[in-house]
Amino acid sequence: MNTLLLTGFEPFHTHPVNPSAEATRTLDGTQAGNLRVVSALLPVEPHAACARLTELLGTQRPAAVLLTGLASGRPQVTLERVAVNVMDFRIPDNAGQQHRDAPVQAGGPDAYLSTLPLRAVLAAWHGAGIPGQLSDTAGTFVCNAVMYHALHTLRALGRPDVPCGFLHLPASAGVALAEAKAVPYLPQPELTRAVEVAARTVAASVSGEA
Amino acid sequence: MNTLLLTGFEPFHTHPVNPSAEATRTLDGTQAGNLRVVSALLPVEPHAACARLTELLGTQRPAAVLLTGLASGRPQVTLERVAVNVMDFRIPDNAGQQHRDAPVQAGGPDAYLSTLPLRAVLAAWHGAGIPGQLSDTAGTFVCNAVMYHALHTLRALGRPDVPCGFLHLPASAGVALAEAKAVPYLPQPELTRAVEVAARTVAASVSGEA
Amino acid sequence: MNTLLLTGFEPFHTHPVNPSAEATRTLDGTQAGNLRVVSALLPVEPHAACARLTELLGTQRPAAVLLTGLASGRPQVTLERVAVNVMDFRIPDNAGQQHRDAPVQAGGPDAYLSTLPLRAVLAAWHGAGIPGQLSDTAGTFVCNAVMYHALHTLRALGRPDVPCGFLHLPASAGVALAEAKAVPYLPQPELTRAVEVAARTVAASVSGEA
Amino acid sequence: MNTLLLTGFEPFHTHPVNPSAEATRTLDGTQAGNLRVVSALLPVEPHAACARLTELLGTQRPAAVLLTGLASGRPQVTLERVAVNVMDFRIPDNAGQQHRDAPVQAGGPDAYLSTLPLRAVLAAWHGAGIPGQLSDTAGTFVCNAVMYHALHTLRALGRPDVPCGFLHLPASAGVALAEAKAVPYLPQPELTRAVEVAARTVAASVSGEA
Repeated sequence: MNTLLLTGFEPFHTHPVNPSAEATRTLDGTQAGNLRVVSALLPVEPHAACARLTELLGTQRPAAVLLTGLASGRPQVTLERVAVNVMDFRIPDNAGQQHRDAPVQAGGPDAYLSTLPLRAVLAAWHGAGIPGQLSDTAGTFVCNAVMYHALHTLRALGRPDVPCGFLHLPASAGVALAEAKAVPYLPQPELTRAVEVAARTVAASVSGEA
Repeated sequence: MNTLLLTGFEPFHTHPVNPSAEATRTLDGTQAGNLRVVSALLPVEPHAACARLTELLGTQRPAAVLLTGLASGRPQVTLERVAVNVMDFRIPDNAGQQHRDAPVQAGGPDAYLSTLPLRAVLAAWHGAGIPGQLSDTAGTFVCNAVMYHALHTLRALGRPDVPCGFLHLPASAGVALAEAKAVPYLPQPELTRAVEVAARTVAASVSGEA
Repeated sequence: MNTLLLTGFEPFHTHPVNPSAEATRTLDGTQAGNLRVVSALLPVEPHAACARLTELLGTQRPAAVLLTGLASGRPQVTLERVAVNVMDFRIPDNAGQQHRDAPVQAGGPDAYLSTLPLRAVLAAWHGAGIPGQLSDTAGTFVCNAVMYHALHTLRALGRPDVPCGFLHLPASAGVALAEAKAVPYLPQPELTRAVEVAARTVAASVSGEA
Repeated sequence: MNTLLLTGFEPFHTHPVNPSAEATRTLDGTQAGNLRVVSALLPVEPHAACARLTELLGTQRPAAVLLTGLASGRPQVTLERVAVNVMDFRIPDNAGQQHRDAPVQAGGPDAYLSTLPLRAVLAAWHGAGIPGQLSDTAGTFVCNAVMYHALHTLRALGRPDVPCGFLHLPASAGVALAEAKAVPYLPQPELTRAVEVAARTVAASVSGEA
């Protein structure tokens, strides 16, 4: 059976947990339409994360790629429109590095637009009672780097039609309880449900093309 | 058995639902510690709401009063510290009135501090995995008016020791889906749970005093 | 000639300057309508600040009192509606203290409403091209304590009719440049101008009553 | 003498004025380093704006291009990092159109990174006492379209080395006074000064290369 590659990230910065890790672990091995979900946990360091992603794209040859991560402070789940060829870290990654104005891929194009069915996911969320939005920026931290790298690698592998993009989650309760300021949050099951609905919609778009 | 009076509000403004109405309806008749929860729905018009509240305080003679309402845009559940003797409406109430710089109670004191066990409720929330905060302002709309009126009336009835205060809920999914902008929200069951934990904690504080 | 007492605060927390100090220093000795501006700088510690204020109210016997301070993060100049009898410090004051759930004045009323001509100041600001707002909370830090104390002391002195209240300034450029996050700011001359317009309007309201 | 092309926009949406128009008008004909500033006012409709820009780039053959516009709600002046090949309008443009998920340039690359000396402008702002930031998104309205089109056209003209990018201004007082909500603002002279400092820094980077 074809697979949908679903990634989350390890905890980072001051966050005690990462809701993207919990959501992807929960959904690992489940069925999303005609695709089997294969989950992977990425490190919060761009070189290791991109290397792991290259390996997964090569070995799994997924029919769809849904990358997820945490954006504490956002009020709702969001789908990213675009990944840019820039790393500019306001906080250190888990290796203690703070890249500044560096490319994700030297010589690569300036950006890649998401190839996920963005409007279909939004509609599916709303149909499931989940408010959600498009986001015009994935930031310039590891989340953006990983989205850029996945789209770049699929192009290099001659598979530009594989739907691929990034879903940013708000804080979970565990993240919010550890923040000094009052941030919006959603219970983990609601976050996992949003990822699941997105994965199913992405999977349906692949089947629809077959 | 002694009662805990729990109030919510009708829908208002552009909001299709009011999560405070749904939470209080769900909890009506349940047990909160040694108290029985009696729920009431208040109209979003200050004079009718205050009249209804006066009646409820007189007939129910509650041992505790927990008033709840919606504050769309807030990221977490909040307990109000204080109600002020001011009505200044940025939006019309459900009677179409927009009171401006008017007192809730002509000749009344400038404000009343909440008599709820604020820190105990915060601690109970955190213990239950619910991030929550104190708020320094209940605004100057009907929520504030009702909180002021309840505290004023308990004083007038010679019952200033009855714990009484206001809990503001963020948007539910239903409210957020109807907003033009992306607002923070919580699923209704999580909002209801936050009200339930608060009610139980308030009830425990009454028993503790007995 | 009668005086208008105008106070600002020393720098505090991580802020290298305090725009309220600069504004009040600039306006010291100027004329606001029929009143002479007497400026004073208050320490950011509630007991010393209140003691200094008591002394100034006694010796100056001002015809009007305009207290000012910094609220970094606010987008516009704001006039406070109310001061509450609560000190609950999220950051330490300049003496290193972090008061929690303590009254400003043990046994005092729960709050005092501002006695400034709030709508007249708003109108004067708008007429002068200065967007400004009413604020429903002065917080629970030293600014609020000083506003509460001034209103309480004027009452105790038998002078409740002296207009008295608090004006919160946004960050100045100097404050904003030192913040880790992008905060709204106004150039110091614009902040000083907002204080001057407010002082003139307050002074006019006193003359109007004479 | 070589020119720096400086553009602003007409008023749009509910905004009574556009501070980018006022800043560019004020600076028209002035000297920025070794370059003469030539200002142009663009319509808030993507096709007409892009056509006008194509014409200006052809006739003026500018040595540098600084595009400016209004982003009401932002707290500080910002330089955009990137323009994306997407038009998705949340509000209608001045022709009443609301483009949705449309490319700026059919078949064009997904995005272009700014070619302005971003860090040098930030440093010059800070040196001039102006807090300012990089922005990771220029949105998906006419501002972004114009930035994309300018960078695309310079490439097509064989002039990819001409520094070109976008500067977003916060509200001016005139804009803020017309908003229903309290938005951050800066006095127009401060906004104009920020554009002037940016223009001078961009011009210096061109001379530096000569």
